Amino acid sequence: MSDGTGPVTGSVQRAGAEWLQYDYASTRLVDDEPRPVTMWRYRALLPVGEGPVRYPLPIGGTPLLPSPALRASLGMPGLWLKDETRGPSASNKDRATALVIEGGLRGGVDTITTASTGNAAISTAFGAAAAGLRAAIFVSTGCRPDKLALMAQAGAWVFRVSAGYAAAVDLSRTAARAFGWLDRNTGANPVTVEAKKTVAFEVWEQLGRRPPDAMVAPVGDGPTLAALDKGFDELVRCGVADRRPRLIGVQADRCQPLVQAWRGGVAGPAQLDPAGTVADGIAVLRPAIGDAVLAAVGRDGGGMVAVDDEALLRAVDALAARAGVGAEPAGAAALAGLHRALEVGLVHRDENVVLLVTGRELKAAGGPGDGRRVRTVDRLDEVEKALADGNDG
Amino acid sequence: MSDGTGPVTGSVQRAGAEWLQYDYASTRLVDDEPRPVTMWRYRALLPVGEGPVRYPLPIGGTPLLPSPALRASLGMPGLWLKDETRGPSASNKDRATALVIEGGLRGGVDTITTASTGNAAISTAFGAAAAGLRAAIFVSTGCRPDKLALMAQAGAWVFRVSAGYAAAVDLSRTAARAFGWLDRNTGANPVTVEAKKTVAFEVWEQLGRRPPDAMVAPVGDGPTLAALDKGFDELVRCGVADRRPRLIGVQADRCQPLVQAWRGGVAGPAQLDPAGTVADGIAVLRPAIGDAVLAAVGRDGGGMVAVDDEALLRAVDALAARAGVGAEPAGAAALAGLHRALEVGLVHRDENVVLLVTGRELKAAGGPGDGRRVRTVDRLDEVEKALADGNDG
Repeated sequence: MSDGTGPVTGSVQRAGAEWLQYDYASTRLVDDEPRPVTMWRYRALLPVGEGPVRYPLPIGGTPLLPSPALRASLGMPGLWLKDETRGPSASNKDRATALVIEGGLRGGVDTITTASTGNAAISTAFGAAAAGLRAAIFVSTGCRPDKLALMAQAGAWVFRVSAGYAAAVDLSRTAARAFGWLDRNTGANPVTVEAKKTVAFEVWEQLGRRPPDAMVAPVGDGPTLAALDKGFDELVRCGVADRRPRLIGVQADRCQPLVQAWRGGVAGPAQLDPAGTVADGIAVLRPAIGDAVLAAVGRDGGGMVAVDDEALLRAVDALAARAGVGAEPAGAAALAGLHRALEVGLVHRDENVVLLVTGRELKAAGGPGDGRRVRTVDRLDEVEKALADGNDG
Repeated sequence: MSDGTGPVTGSVQRAGAEWLQYDYASTRLVDDEPRPVTMWRYRALLPVGEGPVRYPLPIGGTPLLPSPALRASLGMPGLWLKDETRGPSASNKDRATALVIEGGLRGGVDTITTASTGNAAISTAFGAAAAGLRAAIFVSTGCRPDKLALMAQAGAWVFRVSAGYAAAVDLSRTAARAFGWLDRNTGANPVTVEAKKTVAFEVWEQLGRRPPDAMVAPVGDGPTLAALDKGFDELVRCGVADRRPRLIGVQADRCQPLVQAWRGGVAGPAQLDPAGTVADGIAVLRPAIGDAVLAAVGRDGGGMVAVDDEALLRAVDALAARAGVGAEPAGAAALAGLHRALEVGLVHRDENVVLLVTGRELKAAGGPGDGRRVRTVDRLDEVEKALADGNDG
């Protein structure tokens, strides 16, 4: 992905991850050309070459909501919600899915793969369906049946790996290398961060080309927050912003490896129980780009906070009842984290603060989907055989 | 609502409903002014006065998707999906909710009411929450618990009426008159049609300022299709389109009063069983503005078709697997109906055809919500007492 695609000039290794580089200039973000109201608005800073965008679903351009009732209840006149639930699969994963698939369509790849237990898998399944690609999703055998149903409904191949989630990640990445598939795995593909950084660009533009004072976001594997860091950093490099916001990451108290690392400690067993929290979307034991997250919150006075399930559920209800925004617990974590951040002085009530609402849950409302494409596997040859036998089955 | 709000010049009674009138001219839709990419883009043809829009959630501006895989599978290169699932409560009801509430905010009203068993109620609950209004929703005691949970989560008052849905409608409308509440009930308020007609304006503009040859839409109470009729009609009156598309309405075979009426017959008991179909969102025994629907499809060679549950569920799966669009069965009815319309010659494969995907189901992902605001009532004084006792409880 550092092959100079489009405006990309190269890449650097930083905090354990690969970061694409560009020639930064204000004209990359501000000029007199008409721009679409989607993620592609920012393609001068995305790894996409010339020519029309092939990905068929509009992505990005999500609302930045003032939410007057929520502002009043919190006494925060400068509070904003960046509502990422408006995407085609109702989460910010849709940005990464779109940009990865756009590259694949240009490269003539026919299959995309990822391991995921949740929104990334569903986003990949729906995005691949829209683009006419095959999706090969790897999950642990513990994956929730309602999530499996959504993936199957979108026509994805779903491989349940009995050895668990880490093995599912390994198998997905091995398959990508062996078969030449698109690898959408978080941490493996810097394009996911490139896509999600457009959230920072949109917030800056929606605030009248100014960064907020602080932005709060849920943290699981890390790309969402790391991408905000890169996006706001690029605004400064382009000379269109004079500073970056403080970034505050939120984890569930039952699975808070990065909050503990931020405090200089090591998380104990009770703080590393992904199944123990309602925020399954951010319950990640070993965050793929955790070091990048710690570096990001370490700049400019940000930090990490943990919230309990009760606070997460209260945040879901408050977003619905005071802002009219539906979110899942992980998607509402920024609001729960805001309360904690206010308590510890990481943000102040008179500041411009943006909460990133990352997603809400969909319901599989159709028929049973194509169960023939859901298989339990342990090895690569089983994957290969299933695909060969069931080709267009 | 015929009080000349904004550009409205009056209203006429037609096919059993009230229709707002305007001074039609091309400048109402085409000029050099920058316009927002939302429903308010068309405010020169909406009952909204001067000044900034107060409703805080962006509404409308939903995608018109080419869906290449779906086109290929159907052999229809001119097929489009108008994806209304991107609204804040994931259905086209959000347009009507927004326009009704905008009027209420300008009039200083503090409560909005509607009777509904589904998407309109959820949309009203979330929209009211966003705008800081109180919502009073009337449902039958048979209302699905997951839908009740969503309304309660958004902080709405939910009144369960044991005498059934028709009694719930009566009580909602009586309460609106008695207490001066905003009445969002379909058929009672011409503003709901005004809001939904913006779908026709958007389709026209997204097709390069041309109407499609045909448009297919689900039909329950009728406003969605009647609004398409009014919108496309206004485009012709404004002189920016030279014809209207054929309109094709879709009902479930288990609840098809308007399909039977269209054929000149009377629906039998097996065709009037709202509980008998998976398409609960369009299963309406006595459509509120059915005559307007029949008049609309009767123009320009359109028609009504019925589809069975199996076809509806296949359509849900096909939208997911071939277009990457999640829909509920009622929301996918246009695709199911397209197959039938092709069979009977109402549309042809070489035409420009737009399918209206009206909505998808949300999941109540949070806590139990505020159960104290869910009450079972039969009379208006019980409603009044509940609200007085439970004020901000």
